[in-house]
Amino acid sequence: MVDVQRDGDTVRITMNRAAKRNALSAEHLGELLTAFREAGESDASGIVFGAEGPVFSAGHDFGDVAGRDLHGVREMLELCTTLMRTIQEVPQVVIARVHALATAAGCQLVASCDLAIAADSAGFALPGGKGGWFCHTPAVPVARNVGRKRLMEMVLTGDVVDAHTAVEWGLINRAVPLDDLDAAVDDLLMRATRGSRASKALGKRTVYAQLDRPEADAYEIALEVMASASQTTAGKEWMASFLDKRKPVWTD
Amino acid sequence: MVDVQRDGDTVRITMNRAAKRNALSAEHLGELLTAFREAGESDASGIVFGAEGPVFSAGHDFGDVAGRDLHGVREMLELCTTLMRTIQEVPQVVIARVHALATAAGCQLVASCDLAIAADSAGFALPGGKGGWFCHTPAVPVARNVGRKRLMEMVLTGDVVDAHTAVEWGLINRAVPLDDLDAAVDDLLMRATRGSRASKALGKRTVYAQLDRPEADAYEIALEVMASASQTTAGKEWMASFLDKRKPVWTD
Amino acid sequence: MVDVQRDGDTVRITMNRAAKRNALSAEHLGELLTAFREAGESDASGIVFGAEGPVFSAGHDFGDVAGRDLHGVREMLELCTTLMRTIQEVPQVVIARVHALATAAGCQLVASCDLAIAADSAGFALPGGKGGWFCHTPAVPVARNVGRKRLMEMVLTGDVVDAHTAVEWGLINRAVPLDDLDAAVDDLLMRATRGSRASKALGKRTVYAQLDRPEADAYEIALEVMASASQTTAGKEWMASFLDKRKPVWTD
Repeated sequence: MVDVQRDGDTVRITMNRAAKRNALSAEHLGELLTAFREAGESDASGIVFGAEGPVFSAGHDFGDVAGRDLHGVREMLELCTTLMRTIQEVPQVVIARVHALATAAGCQLVASCDLAIAADSAGFALPGGKGGWFCHTPAVPVARNVGRKRLMEMVLTGDVVDAHTAVEWGLINRAVPLDDLDAAVDDLLMRATRGSRASKALGKRTVYAQLDRPEADAYEIALEVMASASQTTAGKEWMASFLDKRKPVWTD
Repeated sequence: MVDVQRDGDTVRITMNRAAKRNALSAEHLGELLTAFREAGESDASGIVFGAEGPVFSAGHDFGDVAGRDLHGVREMLELCTTLMRTIQEVPQVVIARVHALATAAGCQLVASCDLAIAADSAGFALPGGKGGWFCHTPAVPVARNVGRKRLMEMVLTGDVVDAHTAVEWGLINRAVPLDDLDAAVDDLLMRATRGSRASKALGKRTVYAQLDRPEADAYEIALEVMASASQTTAGKEWMASFLDKRKPVWTD
Repeated sequence: MVDVQRDGDTVRITMNRAAKRNALSAEHLGELLTAFREAGESDASGIVFGAEGPVFSAGHDFGDVAGRDLHGVREMLELCTTLMRTIQEVPQVVIARVHALATAAGCQLVASCDLAIAADSAGFALPGGKGGWFCHTPAVPVARNVGRKRLMEMVLTGDVVDAHTAVEWGLINRAVPLDDLDAAVDDLLMRATRGSRASKALGKRTVYAQLDRPEADAYEIALEVMASASQTTAGKEWMASFLDKRKPVWTD
């Protein structure tokens, strides 16, 4: 129920469990995790993460959750959290292609991607708050994308935020007409994957390491990496090509 | 000087010290703290926090501060900080109804509420920076609502930010004409208080616990709560009603 | 190659290495650090940080970096980081006057200033990500000014963000026509430097100390400072003048 397709330097991972609104059963989470791990170990430079069907993803699959005891739910949430972290840990640039509604853990998936572009008919919601199982874990990455008052509105009301508002709030990078979605995703991915792959992978990892730490701690992390990176093949080629006024050639 | 009114599932806490521009003397802070604590222990689902008079609140009452020594001021600031934290600790959704200017600790009150709607004639300022007693503590929750450059502009200039700019910056959720303020507040509160009260209270507490921590720490907090919440009455009812395609019935 | 000019209560620090696009060689960094330290020890209330030439600053000087080993690059990055921290540590209000493109560590300089105004023809970029030496350290203060998705777009694509977008994202405070830049900078600086200098300096220091810490830790820092500040000359004068309905007189 997860399609994986290699397309040049890009891996396209597509949820294809449309009849279940791409709900994240443990099985579906496991397939996604495998897909991201395998893509992560490939030599691709970018990953487009999309979905088929009427919604992007409805979040956790209540049919799968309802029968589980505490231990079983925790196990499933650990799998889910591992998936979210894996999206950030793979060396590739991951861009969400959000063609329709993304709710609960589905919204969490979008918030966890490095970049995201949505069709302007898409929407985003953390609906647990208007019911009985609050979106505690989906709120984690959403809180790191939007401001506090906006987060509180999302988690407390559970209402859908339209794509243009999501851009204003910083939850996604762009909203475009559905017909332009693939072109916009490919264009941003092309621009985000230029240059040395090794350098970019180190950059992605370092940004997530320093991102939500106090500034002084962040500098300690980033400074050491930046110094080391100056001595790499890619770092030296970047500077040499600039000084020689020629196009750089990447070997990693 | 603080009016408390129970209105259905809502407690309306209203500062009514208009002649003193709702300045936050120790006495006034104490009354507000009592009001929020009592509302917090009630079975209400929401709290509307508003004010009467020409301003929402002018912040600390210099008539009360000026005569105090270091120990006395610290005592008053501890009371003030306890009030701010209590607004976040009560299980109810707290929405600020800001009909007019909110400055210094008055602006801090708005920043500390879960949600906030202002009349578009309202304004927000941290004026201490243009005088002699910098808004050190009011800057704490404001910094957690708006970006850094905007915070610096507010604390350094002390100038008033209008309501529409406050929306753009994420300090408040909406700005509406004064005539529409009550309707907008009630509408947002209604949407924010749907569902199980116990689930929402746990959600609010967990969001504030994880909000400004590194993402990995936040997940540790949120994952455990989310697993436990799946086993509660409300969590089970939410999933059962979904699977049975019926309306959920909340007992807590 | 750094011009320093005292102009009333303002120190104007201007990069004047136009032929090298104000690239930050170790020598240039050292001159800037000296200029900020001396301005920091002066009795000025504000610092305008600008540049001459076709760009604001192109960031690190590859001609200087390329010949260095790991130790040498680390030394230069430590100097660079010390400069960034010094901008935040000086007691004066520091405003960036960005007349043109600011890239890499040049963009980091703008992100590190308390306030920033740009000509609407200016732009901002972290270009290392499209090459071979990722902008690890420039991403540190940029991440503390803009949201996560926007940061990722900047560091991954390396593309230029125009000045109006930079305002929307919170990287700078305003974008104005180039002809209005000096007036806008002077106006904001005037408003940001009113009041007691000692009080403002303590305020700036305390804001940076509490800014990216958990809210409870931030309150611990800010509460103690705010209590002490009530007992200072400036704190007492601010309250006394308010209560006496007269203009305050600042002696520090």
